[in-house]
Amino acid sequence: MTPAAVAAHAERYRDVGRVLVTCPDRPGIVAAISGLLFRHGANITELQQYSTDPFGGTFFLRIEFHREDLAGELPAIEEGLARLAAGAATRWRVATPAVRQRVAIFVSKADHALQELLWRTHSGELEMDVRMVVSNHPDLGDAVAGWGIPYHHIPVTTETRDEAERRALALLAGQVDLVVLARYMQVLTPRFLAAFPDRIINIHHSFLPAFVGADPYSAAARRGVKLIGATAHYVTAELDAGPIIEQDIERVDHRHQVADLRRIGRHVERAVLARAVGWHTQDRVIVHSNTTIVFA
Amino acid sequence: MTPAAVAAHAERYRDVGRVLVTCPDRPGIVAAISGLLFRHGANITELQQYSTDPFGGTFFLRIEFHREDLAGELPAIEEGLARLAAGAATRWRVATPAVRQRVAIFVSKADHALQELLWRTHSGELEMDVRMVVSNHPDLGDAVAGWGIPYHHIPVTTETRDEAERRALALLAGQVDLVVLARYMQVLTPRFLAAFPDRIINIHHSFLPAFVGADPYSAAARRGVKLIGATAHYVTAELDAGPIIEQDIERVDHRHQVADLRRIGRHVERAVLARAVGWHTQDRVIVHSNTTIVFA
Amino acid sequence: MTPAAVAAHAERYRDVGRVLVTCPDRPGIVAAISGLLFRHGANITELQQYSTDPFGGTFFLRIEFHREDLAGELPAIEEGLARLAAGAATRWRVATPAVRQRVAIFVSKADHALQELLWRTHSGELEMDVRMVVSNHPDLGDAVAGWGIPYHHIPVTTETRDEAERRALALLAGQVDLVVLARYMQVLTPRFLAAFPDRIINIHHSFLPAFVGADPYSAAARRGVKLIGATAHYVTAELDAGPIIEQDIERVDHRHQVADLRRIGRHVERAVLARAVGWHTQDRVIVHSNTTIVFA
Amino acid sequence: MTPAAVAAHAERYRDVGRVLVTCPDRPGIVAAISGLLFRHGANITELQQYSTDPFGGTFFLRIEFHREDLAGELPAIEEGLARLAAGAATRWRVATPAVRQRVAIFVSKADHALQELLWRTHSGELEMDVRMVVSNHPDLGDAVAGWGIPYHHIPVTTETRDEAERRALALLAGQVDLVVLARYMQVLTPRFLAAFPDRIINIHHSFLPAFVGADPYSAAARRGVKLIGATAHYVTAELDAGPIIEQDIERVDHRHQVADLRRIGRHVERAVLARAVGWHTQDRVIVHSNTTIVFA
Repeated sequence: MTPAAVAAHAERYRDVGRVLVTCPDRPGIVAAISGLLFRHGANITELQQYSTDPFGGTFFLRIEFHREDLAGELPAIEEGLARLAAGAATRWRVATPAVRQRVAIFVSKADHALQELLWRTHSGELEMDVRMVVSNHPDLGDAVAGWGIPYHHIPVTTETRDEAERRALALLAGQVDLVVLARYMQVLTPRFLAAFPDRIINIHHSFLPAFVGADPYSAAARRGVKLIGATAHYVTAELDAGPIIEQDIERVDHRHQVADLRRIGRHVERAVLARAVGWHTQDRVIVHSNTTIVFA
Repeated sequence: MTPAAVAAHAERYRDVGRVLVTCPDRPGIVAAISGLLFRHGANITELQQYSTDPFGGTFFLRIEFHREDLAGELPAIEEGLARLAAGAATRWRVATPAVRQRVAIFVSKADHALQELLWRTHSGELEMDVRMVVSNHPDLGDAVAGWGIPYHHIPVTTETRDEAERRALALLAGQVDLVVLARYMQVLTPRFLAAFPDRIINIHHSFLPAFVGADPYSAAARRGVKLIGATAHYVTAELDAGPIIEQDIERVDHRHQVADLRRIGRHVERAVLARAVGWHTQDRVIVHSNTTIVFA
Repeated sequence: MTPAAVAAHAERYRDVGRVLVTCPDRPGIVAAISGLLFRHGANITELQQYSTDPFGGTFFLRIEFHREDLAGELPAIEEGLARLAAGAATRWRVATPAVRQRVAIFVSKADHALQELLWRTHSGELEMDVRMVVSNHPDLGDAVAGWGIPYHHIPVTTETRDEAERRALALLAGQVDLVVLARYMQVLTPRFLAAFPDRIINIHHSFLPAFVGADPYSAAARRGVKLIGATAHYVTAELDAGPIIEQDIERVDHRHQVADLRRIGRHVERAVLARAVGWHTQDRVIVHSNTTIVFA
Repeated sequence: MTPAAVAAHAERYRDVGRVLVTCPDRPGIVAAISGLLFRHGANITELQQYSTDPFGGTFFLRIEFHREDLAGELPAIEEGLARLAAGAATRWRVATPAVRQRVAIFVSKADHALQELLWRTHSGELEMDVRMVVSNHPDLGDAVAGWGIPYHHIPVTTETRDEAERRALALLAGQVDLVVLARYMQVLTPRFLAAFPDRIINIHHSFLPAFVGADPYSAAARRGVKLIGATAHYVTAELDAGPIIEQDIERVDHRHQVADLRRIGRHVERAVLARAVGWHTQDRVIVHSNTTIVFA
């Protein structure tokens, strides 16, 4: 984003807050929180809620609100929410979107997902602050330089994996709120995952675990699949099995050879990843067990 | 639905109510209504809201709630809502889905949309009570008889249009809550429309007004269109220009001749109409000016 | 189809033939076969071909042609094709669509896929002759009776499986060209499969082998999937791993509970199965290894 | 494309030719042309044909073939085709894809369609040679410079329209095979159109003529549309009514304000335009009356 766009973003969201709540469902939650916001002078501009089961399930709430001079009132609102949450197994937070989330994008050699994220950020469609691109290869350095974003090349080999990850974590520490794996072909260790719980988004082809192994596109071709898909998910310790944020597909047919399937896969991947990252940075995704609530 | 399914439906929704509100947006609406429901012992199970503009726009709210012994408390809840609404330009209603909406389906000769509605009703997916099928042709009488639903053949000619519509209105009076035009090829008069405001749903191909005239599929074919669509909308005085509830498309290509386009159009029509009718009968659609808010 | 529709079908395809060829790719195949047809007075109305690799791959060809008095000329055409095929590893056949393929539909208790097939056949969209419905349950007998089609209830238990399958095979012998498993919840034995090679079509949810086990919809819900799909495929000895004919999906979100996923799955299944059966009965599908060439 | 990619492209298509034919349908066309190619030593690698009506309609054919030392044999093949075409109302041409089509992209201020075309060209997915970008505004000059492509700023006002178009035509003369209007907001004159018959591709939102006038997205929003689409078509004298090459849509709902509809419209536009341009540059599109045959 240009400086002018950054300023416009800050102005647009100046007095905007977002409340996110996860708690056991019971009567009166909406009344309590909306009443609290009303007493503090806030106007609800968006509200979404979901309950896995109104009788004993888990309740999820996202409220976007506007309050003149939000900065001055925020402590009181947070204090009120803390009081409401006391005693119940409630997780809550208030986000202030005027300050954009800071993002690190990890890549290897493929540029399609990276370029899509950078273009959408530049156009203002993704409201985030890309602080750095990290790669285990030097290949995409020039492309990133054109966007004026730091590019950190951190090679990774079996021997240096541990040291490389330490270097990456040092770069990220206190600098980023979200890590996006935009076709980063290295497995992260539990230590890395622990540093960014529910804040690492990955994109991959959609057939895992349908077509496991080194070359799923070839396996898909051998079965004659008619759809190629992609899945964006949060990264958890179980490889490629974390909570799904978004999925989509494109149709293919017998004329598509393996290279075509890969090409189409790239298009699906960039669209799916961009949507998932957009929802995350707008605080629209709540993780619950191994699923997501997406208040899109 | 079988008698057993009807009983199960009534049981499932026994103490369920739905509040629908349209009013000028202002702070505190959600707090006021959710607080009212909480004080009356109701548990909100679903809540959706939307504002065209938080500063001076129109606010829409749909709440589904559960309250033990709803029948006994309903008058008090409605009284409370009436009090909240007083003085502001507020439209509100409470729906009780335990009693299914009564529906009349109007058809001419094509059966695809009719069959889809009857099958989905039979399978319990559409929660409605099809009271009658009305047609200006006798052709579909046998098919309807198989479902055990009354079929009224009311011929319409230019000369008899007025009398025919009177007969239809007499059949409907006090008997149905919703009229579905499932490929009914007659234009309704303002008198008919006035009897069912925002409660007549029509389905047609999606190219109007793109390809106007007697044979839009031929016009679409002459232009080489690659998509065939359908639109479900509420019927208003302006022909085929009422608020859109749902739309969808299927892809076509140069090999599809006009007959193929019509066939594909039928498939899109039945899917789109079924979704629109489902949302309406679940009180998920609010009409606003010439648009719809669909809390799907 | 009504008798009138059957007669119209026969008339429409009276002099229409279809040539299907699979052979090693080499220069001159199209020239040879199109030249043969031309010399025999045939006019090609549709031609599709595909080669896995023009240099040493496998070549597939589908030609639809029209020839006045086809019945008289067919032996000569077939003789010419046999001569062309001699010596090369060529598989070929000529189909005459004037006689509709005879189909048996196998079901258990779910009716959605069955009803879709029967409705599309009745409307003339599926050009096939449904000879019988076979089920291991009596439940759908009444629904099928309304269409005037024989319904054979053949119970299956672990003890009677062998005998039940023999009874089914006896019913089918010489009577049907295609078996459609429209949610038939029994596994067929190799003996049954051998009786209908590449002529048994099955439909199932699309997540196998992604979510294996007894309840894939629950597993999908636990992962938070955003797509529900269905796959139509030929049945082979490896369970649910046969060549895919068609696939499709519908979007879902966190609000869809397991019952909703199943309902949406049913809609995808009936659409996907109907398309696959339609292509098969129009001789548009060629099986190759474990894939399909679909000349849709 | 990098020099290495250009060389790889030339190598891949070194001996590849494409025959495109439009003629009155009659028996023997496929036999005649495939026989000609066979006699000249060519191996057909792809063949698609279509007839609007096998009895008196128009026939379309696209053949891709491989022939060792194509350059040496091409004159003889073209001579043979000319002989076959003699006397019938036949249009034919042979394309040699080893030399990429030269393209000029016209833009105004919006960059989404332009960036998509440049990125896909760079990645090798669009096999074309972007010779220049022409714009009536200077805004996108920097973005284009990064790709190493000449940017010509030709301002257009009502007074200078004629002169500006002359300048543009002078730039294009003999230099480009295809003009892509990637959100170029100026109307071209008949003189310009005559210089590139069936070789100017435009992209626009899909609602024309559904929502005509200055602001179709606002009109669409007022009607509550649920789909936003885009159409890529060849430009003809009748504004926005030329033969359609490709269309697609994305779903929207009541929460999408006019700005959102425009943003989503941009995504659909870039995908649809890229597909249309790809098919054109692979000689897959044949214009017939006001429709297209797309051998995709």
